[in-house]
Amino acid sequence: MVEISRRRAIEDVASELFRAHGYAATSVRDIARVLEIQGPSLYAHVTSKEAVLWAIVDRAAARFEAAAEAATRATGIDPVEAMAALVRAHVRVITDDVGAAAVFVHEWRALGPDRRSAVLERRDAYERRFREVIETGIAGGDFEMTDPALAATAVLSTLNGIPGWYRPDGRLPAGRVADHFVDLVLRMLQGASR
Amino acid sequence: MVEISRRRAIEDVASELFRAHGYAATSVRDIARVLEIQGPSLYAHVTSKEAVLWAIVDRAAARFEAAAEAATRATGIDPVEAMAALVRAHVRVITDDVGAAAVFVHEWRALGPDRRSAVLERRDAYERRFREVIETGIAGGDFEMTDPALAATAVLSTLNGIPGWYRPDGRLPAGRVADHFVDLVLRMLQGASR
Repeated sequence: MVEISRRRAIEDVASELFRAHGYAATSVRDIARVLEIQGPSLYAHVTSKEAVLWAIVDRAAARFEAAAEAATRATGIDPVEAMAALVRAHVRVITDDVGAAAVFVHEWRALGPDRRSAVLERRDAYERRFREVIETGIAGGDFEMTDPALAATAVLSTLNGIPGWYRPDGRLPAGRVADHFVDLVLRMLQGASR
Repeated sequence: MVEISRRRAIEDVASELFRAHGYAATSVRDIARVLEIQGPSLYAHVTSKEAVLWAIVDRAAARFEAAAEAATRATGIDPVEAMAALVRAHVRVITDDVGAAAVFVHEWRALGPDRRSAVLERRDAYERRFREVIETGIAGGDFEMTDPALAATAVLSTLNGIPGWYRPDGRLPAGRVADHFVDLVLRMLQGASR
């Protein structure tokens, strides 16, 4: 238990430092300094900076996956409802721990080749959930899209901008952020603008 | 002239390496190796890895700014046309040099504090162009939005996902990408989904 909470503290501090200064500019020593632990003691918990990055990214990915899974289970087959639930779940994972989400979205490219590939595969699988709902919506006439793959990518790009500006103490509470983005995404998918 | 083209070659190679392996994992030595020049000779052109990053980011920012300026000059006051032109200009800057755009979008956070601040200010000014068009569109009834600042941020997040997947030899030619994103953005701003 102490072990888990120490690891979690390391990840939280690292998330904040990576977010504030960038992954490249942050050292394991910087992380140790904030935690007020000595370098050698830190290395008992983390083998490298990349291992800390991986721990953060892996946990964030797992949270996105679990939230999408729960959202899909909770909604019926109606694609508008299903998309709203997926968007709401995604935004919630971001706003619940924006430091980790920011690292997941902005810094995963700094992982080594094998872990990058693993993240890419998980991102593809995750994006597929969105694409399948969009395809169902097109088939049933709920969505008007000519390119569901591009639409799914665009939806996730829109949502993944949130960690760049969201602050828990900012002008928009998390619930309002989710409302806005559900609305924006459904407009994108439903509207016939021209 | 030789000086300029050598610098440009360094930036192009660095863009590709930063994009492929991430900024953190790329060294000045890696850049020199691809260019087949010796380390000391490279250091005559670049003082540090961050200086190369800055050169790429600064040039990309200037291209986005110039394209938006031209798009705004070329269109009248009609906000739908103005937004379509801004989106088209933005997508074009990305697709014309997707390596530099990817570095601009994904790696600018690795800059030192002063340059990060400078980039943030330019991004804010650039985003303001989008917000002003959205505000004009709301005032005239062309757009239905309750939060123009959030809408401008969302539009740019949507567009800035493109460097993550666009390939010049991919299934979608640059012009089609621009068409799709003009459509997606106008739907977002115009439609009343619920």
